Amino acid sequence: MVSSLRLPSLTSLFSSPYLRRPPPLLRRLHHHHKLSFPPPLTTAFSSQTTSASTTENPKKQTNQDHKVITPRSQDFNAWYVDIIANAELADYGPVRGTMVIRPYGYAIWEAIQDYLNVKFKETGHSNMYFPQFIPFSFIEKEASHVEGFSPELALVTIGGGKELEEKLVVRPTSETIVNHMFTQWIHSYRDLPLMVNQWANVTRWEMRTKPFVRTLEFLWQEGHTAHANPEEAEKEALQMINVYTKFAYEQAAIPVIAGRKSKAETFAGADRTYTIEAMMGDRKALQAGTSHNLGQNFSRAFGTQFMDENGERQHVWQTSWAVSTRFIGGIIMTHGDDSGLMLPPKIAPIQVVIVPIWKKEDEKTGVLNAASSVKKVLESAGIKVKLDDTDQRTPGWKFNFWEMKGVPLRIEIGPRDVSSASVVISRRDVPGKQGKVFGISMEPSILEAYVKDKLDEIQSSLLGRATSFRDSNIVDVSSYDELKAAITLGKWARGPWSASDADEQRVKEETGATIRCFPFEQPQGTKTCLMTGSPAEEVAIFAKSY
Amino acid sequence: MVSSLRLPSLTSLFSSPYLRRPPPLLRRLHHHHKLSFPPPLTTAFSSQTTSASTTENPKKQTNQDHKVITPRSQDFNAWYVDIIANAELADYGPVRGTMVIRPYGYAIWEAIQDYLNVKFKETGHSNMYFPQFIPFSFIEKEASHVEGFSPELALVTIGGGKELEEKLVVRPTSETIVNHMFTQWIHSYRDLPLMVNQWANVTRWEMRTKPFVRTLEFLWQEGHTAHANPEEAEKEALQMINVYTKFAYEQAAIPVIAGRKSKAETFAGADRTYTIEAMMGDRKALQAGTSHNLGQNFSRAFGTQFMDENGERQHVWQTSWAVSTRFIGGIIMTHGDDSGLMLPPKIAPIQVVIVPIWKKEDEKTGVLNAASSVKKVLESAGIKVKLDDTDQRTPGWKFNFWEMKGVPLRIEIGPRDVSSASVVISRRDVPGKQGKVFGISMEPSILEAYVKDKLDEIQSSLLGRATSFRDSNIVDVSSYDELKAAITLGKWARGPWSASDADEQRVKEETGATIRCFPFEQPQGTKTCLMTGSPAEEVAIFAKSY
Repeated sequence: MVSSLRLPSLTSLFSSPYLRRPPPLLRRLHHHHKLSFPPPLTTAFSSQTTSASTTENPKKQTNQDHKVITPRSQDFNAWYVDIIANAELADYGPVRGTMVIRPYGYAIWEAIQDYLNVKFKETGHSNMYFPQFIPFSFIEKEASHVEGFSPELALVTIGGGKELEEKLVVRPTSETIVNHMFTQWIHSYRDLPLMVNQWANVTRWEMRTKPFVRTLEFLWQEGHTAHANPEEAEKEALQMINVYTKFAYEQAAIPVIAGRKSKAETFAGADRTYTIEAMMGDRKALQAGTSHNLGQNFSRAFGTQFMDENGERQHVWQTSWAVSTRFIGGIIMTHGDDSGLMLPPKIAPIQVVIVPIWKKEDEKTGVLNAASSVKKVLESAGIKVKLDDTDQRTPGWKFNFWEMKGVPLRIEIGPRDVSSASVVISRRDVPGKQGKVFGISMEPSILEAYVKDKLDEIQSSLLGRATSFRDSNIVDVSSYDELKAAITLGKWARGPWSASDADEQRVKEETGATIRCFPFEQPQGTKTCLMTGSPAEEVAIFAKSY
Repeated sequence: MVSSLRLPSLTSLFSSPYLRRPPPLLRRLHHHHKLSFPPPLTTAFSSQTTSASTTENPKKQTNQDHKVITPRSQDFNAWYVDIIANAELADYGPVRGTMVIRPYGYAIWEAIQDYLNVKFKETGHSNMYFPQFIPFSFIEKEASHVEGFSPELALVTIGGGKELEEKLVVRPTSETIVNHMFTQWIHSYRDLPLMVNQWANVTRWEMRTKPFVRTLEFLWQEGHTAHANPEEAEKEALQMINVYTKFAYEQAAIPVIAGRKSKAETFAGADRTYTIEAMMGDRKALQAGTSHNLGQNFSRAFGTQFMDENGERQHVWQTSWAVSTRFIGGIIMTHGDDSGLMLPPKIAPIQVVIVPIWKKEDEKTGVLNAASSVKKVLESAGIKVKLDDTDQRTPGWKFNFWEMKGVPLRIEIGPRDVSSASVVISRRDVPGKQGKVFGISMEPSILEAYVKDKLDEIQSSLLGRATSFRDSNIVDVSSYDELKAAITLGKWARGPWSASDADEQRVKEETGATIRCFPFEQPQGTKTCLMTGSPAEEVAIFAKSY
């Protein structure tokens, strides 16, 4: 309860079809506010603040905290919003649909950045920065781009107290301004490939928003490259979707399905869009990253040309690719449970939390000293450790709080552990006694090896669990009836597809599902289109999505 | 010439009182464009691209490149803009006053970020992210804040195709939205101190812009903290100006003068502003970083209160502090010379460039192998190395190019060096033969030690040089006449000051100089105000500034 009270602002500023009324937590808090204003927040806060030393069974005492999270099975969206509030990941901004990313949520983003930044540089890209204000006329230059983005634009019309002659678009994506600059920098084949990336905020005026998943402003990286021939551009687009795929599997423990988007779902201005699609805990699909082969669409619109080796002028071939803070939503909805967030060790801001436990004052020093030295041992082994040594919270409160925050491992140290020079270690991903091991030696080399081993085990266990869940929820279908049945059951339907855009639209209207992708991994053998019965070259995956 | 041709867009989109007409380089390029369109850029490019193996005296051949930079002594502003273009640091964006930060310029920003991020975390701050759109009404809540910022605002009035009910301000700084959120997160003294930072873009509708120094949009970090008492807030504001000071001295080799701003120059909404002031090569002052003690101004305006230990409600005491991409301008204008940029080793994206030299084709393999192994040796020692092994440029062209880019050390390796297992090393900060040492052994431990030693020497040499320059250009004055004389000579005037705001304004109007700060380091003894003859507690520093 206490941690949630830090977020009294969680009213339903975000509109969502799944959030017609505030979830239980919010209603309760709201009620609270109405009862007395200013709300007795600090009182509630204090009432929970019993000293650790007075607690007999701390876990029992704070079971209440546990209940503020709506059960996942009861209302997935309410559960999601509750986790974001209680794990202190984000809060609503004052402008509808905007989001404040709080330190713990931002630390996950930093982990994503740290990994991807290295990969981008290894694959030859440099970071840079393009202005966020784009002349309105730029957006209009690429026909399908303007069609795709114009309904979502935020426009600056006044600057320095004066009405502007030309409206400025707050970037929804940067292809247009990138091409404007590329046209000035690229002259010869020697200037190619030009491979850059920027970490930036982007604005899209979305009507239905949801924290992390779809917000009016979000953070992302956008890579932009220009090449001397179409083969290189295609290779680059594929290379970057592979970087994302590897990140999803190896870091975020999300078994995404990588593939190609259908024509209808291709990025506004691209020839081909590659995507990674993740299955969330409610079995809806989340598009978690995309890589576009832009062909010559933008280079023709902006006149981005180069002199090739034969002295001929040609338009460059381009790509762009992006991953955003939406990915954090994907992590929450893949791994979280009724106790809260569950973070894969490789992207967890805190991998191990140490909770010291003492009853009598004379036990305190010994326990805290042991906890500090355990912390030092793990830190010097490169493990991200937090020692929660406040005496304003009970151990039980701390257990729940750090479970809510999804910390992979918890180390408990009490007076008896100090005597036996050992610790108790609990896994976040295995609840209760089953995930708890007693008597792990404090001896540095043993403890370090044990913790590293367990973190690895959790990392692969999360991936394994998510993979089983995904695979048990994909149904192979060979007819439209089978497809409809699968979607009705909330599953993903995979089946051969060579039907028309109109048929694709019909599926969307009749089932709510869209083609998420034509996966790179295709079954062998001849295929017959599930809709038309004609030969099909590929299977597609259909699902409802965020 | 060649590198400059990559930036044909450098027309005078940026207006500046010092840039009434385009500097020579720009005029030349402009002229070029008018003569023939499309401009014969690739032809010019190709004509310079003679193979290294055909060059007798490469340095002589490319002396031309050298001349595109306006001499610093001739026109400081033109020199500055030329460096930015030729060292490929930045380019103009399509919207007046905006700037594209190119990879090499952005890499300097990343070096600044990497250092400061560690220091911010060490001092207890967490990164997070606040939305950039702020309801217009927020800006109006703090009286002096709105007065200071309203002339510079960019306003979003249309979103998703509709006129907005309330205009949105694109953040010029975030105190207002930060306080809106702090009010929701802070309840008890236990929630304090609250110490956060964000790396973000900000927008200020400046009329007179100059790349890096003053642009319509720029990148910065802004720290925001809330404390339970005024002493802590003051301590924090001072701590952060000290972090900046240390960064300036130890990383950027800029001997800033740290001190307190006068009332007239204090941040709109602060009680006290601390600043670091840097002397540029033209002896104008650059405000390179600020830290504000906000007192309770914003907490009163936004109702940011907490329950103290005695159960009394109080408004929090706050600070904010920022360093921006302007700092890059400071680095250019402190260390650069007529050959281009000169980067302190600690923030140089490339610390050592290796230029292999060969005449005959049969020498090439040996030279390149030696260059590669030297590169590996230095890289594994943690040194940032670039091997420029293209054969599309002459060694002389490369010398000039990397000098322009300010790389601290250059290693030359030719056939004779390969035979003697040694290299030639040139310092960027010591021109010509004086900075060149022959016969440094390739033996890894010797080479590594030598290079590290030289990098340290350059780092302190740059700081020493800038410090001498600064000290020889500060004049102690004891009367207004002396102050005027010093300012007329282009110097900084330091003298006792206890006069009124009106007197300060008069100095500004009559001399163009403002109080840069009351420095922390104060001379001993009694002082008499240079303007009024009354007792003064402190000396102030007056200077013209950017």
